[in-house]
Amino acid sequence: MKVLVLNAGSSSLKYQVIDTDTEAVLGKGIVERIGIAGSNLEQKVNGSKYIINREVKDHTEAFQLVIEAITDTKGGFLKSVSEIDAAGHRVLHGAEDFKDSILITPESFAICKTNEVMGPLHQPANLACIKSVQALLPNIPNVAVFDTAFHATMPAKAYMYAIPYEDYKNHRVRRYGFHGTSHKYVTGEALRLLKNKPGSRVITCHLGNGSSMAAVKDGKVIDTSMGLTPLEGLIMGTRSGDIDPAVVAFLSNKEDKQQYNIKSFVDVYLNKKSGFLGLTGSSDFREVTGKAKSGDEIAMLAVDMFAYRVQKYIGEYYVALGGLDMLVFTGGIGENADFAREKIAAGLSCLGIEINDSQNKATHGEFADISGANSKVKVMVIPTNEELVIARDTVRVLSNK
Amino acid sequence: MKVLVLNAGSSSLKYQVIDTDTEAVLGKGIVERIGIAGSNLEQKVNGSKYIINREVKDHTEAFQLVIEAITDTKGGFLKSVSEIDAAGHRVLHGAEDFKDSILITPESFAICKTNEVMGPLHQPANLACIKSVQALLPNIPNVAVFDTAFHATMPAKAYMYAIPYEDYKNHRVRRYGFHGTSHKYVTGEALRLLKNKPGSRVITCHLGNGSSMAAVKDGKVIDTSMGLTPLEGLIMGTRSGDIDPAVVAFLSNKEDKQQYNIKSFVDVYLNKKSGFLGLTGSSDFREVTGKAKSGDEIAMLAVDMFAYRVQKYIGEYYVALGGLDMLVFTGGIGENADFAREKIAAGLSCLGIEINDSQNKATHGEFADISGANSKVKVMVIPTNEELVIARDTVRVLSNK
Repeated sequence: MKVLVLNAGSSSLKYQVIDTDTEAVLGKGIVERIGIAGSNLEQKVNGSKYIINREVKDHTEAFQLVIEAITDTKGGFLKSVSEIDAAGHRVLHGAEDFKDSILITPESFAICKTNEVMGPLHQPANLACIKSVQALLPNIPNVAVFDTAFHATMPAKAYMYAIPYEDYKNHRVRRYGFHGTSHKYVTGEALRLLKNKPGSRVITCHLGNGSSMAAVKDGKVIDTSMGLTPLEGLIMGTRSGDIDPAVVAFLSNKEDKQQYNIKSFVDVYLNKKSGFLGLTGSSDFREVTGKAKSGDEIAMLAVDMFAYRVQKYIGEYYVALGGLDMLVFTGGIGENADFAREKIAAGLSCLGIEINDSQNKATHGEFADISGANSKVKVMVIPTNEELVIARDTVRVLSNK
Repeated sequence: MKVLVLNAGSSSLKYQVIDTDTEAVLGKGIVERIGIAGSNLEQKVNGSKYIINREVKDHTEAFQLVIEAITDTKGGFLKSVSEIDAAGHRVLHGAEDFKDSILITPESFAICKTNEVMGPLHQPANLACIKSVQALLPNIPNVAVFDTAFHATMPAKAYMYAIPYEDYKNHRVRRYGFHGTSHKYVTGEALRLLKNKPGSRVITCHLGNGSSMAAVKDGKVIDTSMGLTPLEGLIMGTRSGDIDPAVVAFLSNKEDKQQYNIKSFVDVYLNKKSGFLGLTGSSDFREVTGKAKSGDEIAMLAVDMFAYRVQKYIGEYYVALGGLDMLVFTGGIGENADFAREKIAAGLSCLGIEINDSQNKATHGEFADISGANSKVKVMVIPTNEELVIARDTVRVLSNK
């Protein structure tokens, strides 16, 4: 099968076509600045780039551009869109309605629509993209793969917040967790390496511009660091992660914070102006690390804070899992930032976790065992592949039909 | 020395007189409902009670009543207030100004006053109480013992939040931690039991109506669960503890939450209507436990959530400390709730922590070693004594003068 994998953001649309028989990526690309002046598409096929600069005002126009690029006689990689058998969509939020990937039907789409309120920044774009495919390729099935679904196995003691119980019942306020497809992919690789040993205990660290961690027992998530929204947990590019919620009430009295109301304190202040950006002026971990290495004290502190919080979550999940067989690093930072991995691992020998320094320093973006010789826990770098999970899930859902 | 220890809440005033030479409590009591109809004083001396019902409109009138009760020829325990050598006051917030207990002077009092903004629910009452002593017993020195001070040794990576750096600089937004006098008292007892072994690693769990934990290395706090305010961290009687701060923005759109603004979402919803009260309808852990034991599923979930979060913090602090020598339970729940201690310990064998079940079940409110025979970590129940810390600090500050 040829599956078109689509990952729509509010102003971007990433795509890949995967041949699910060989799991080869036939081609991939991204449309950026949708609805903003200067939109463009950049496509890669076998290492060569193909670029189209054209204004696109919405996701349907963007998807029209994707079809053109895919089938372009020079820069494209399919003769006809009729070769595409199905589309698999990344969808942010399944809420408590969808605990696995699903076929899009009028009924399931309507439920996804009501869940826009759970992810107002991303869900509308995800659904607009589904609508675009339905309009332009009406003959192929669409499958939704939810960022929350892999975490749906969490027990109540991990997903409930200590707020009035009726607000869980009426408004579904609870921990959901995100980055599910990434945690699922690396968990699959980890289980393969552990030879599917029953009861295996894995901690997956997806560290990137957005970061989250998961505790996975026997292939099932039992806890994760993101919450109702992707704000909770680790320190991220522009997000605060864990913080005393009283901070916003405290700051709301200050003269220099009068531009914020309750919504913008969360959506703008904590989500877009905090994290590495708020601390150091840069949201890019490479830049922060560069500053830290050249002696910038606040940048060094930011890296220390980031690593310390990862360490603390590893401690939490070690206890939640009752021990640990494998620690996995993935995501842009997890795969590439040996400096971050070194700092994180430096505090973990009390849990029997040690890394091999030279192997760690040599690993940037590729699959590697970076465990120390005496480590009781395997430490792996596993490049993530969310698109492959979406393609596989699409096949699985369609074959279950 | 005879030290009058005073702990003023917004509508209450607790007091003890301690002979610091023998550390004996000569007498103690509480005035309740200050400024509310039905105020009264209840005093205990050698096990016998003495009660005065009288309306008191403010902390000065309440303190006047305390003086009467202390020196009452029948129910009192001092011949004259002139026997009192000094007053030691619990004060909520030292901010970054005071990292130890201090003598109250016009200058230090003024700084405490500017810090009312850091603890608007408690600090004004603490300072009103100091003013009352100055008015009615003008010849004795007053010492302020801050709830935050014992945590002042935390490193920046533990106390900084990932928000814009200027909001730390300008508005002093950071983790401070509370219950310092309790953590300090039980740490002192723990170090004594560990024979002051250098590098000793202790986790103190103050579990009560308010709950917090601290990681203490070599007698110095390196991390604690409460934050800028006492809202962050564990699940408490009426407080949510840790939660995705986006929850308040999410709920602010709901019809049944229109009564809340940013301040009341924090002060009322998260601080007064959440925690055990929000989940189960009761803020009293004994009631919640009772319901749980009689089969109430939500009460059982609440106990599980509480215990799980304590376990996770133990995992965090185990990593932060690089191992653990002693785990201490204190506070109303920590000292008395064998059911909670059992649930918490049940998940900790992966850290080498085990308790003795029968010793645990037999321990309610008294000092006890509840370690299991094979536990690699000592597990202790140590009744706290915040008043004694305040009395000792008062003597220490005055002798340093």
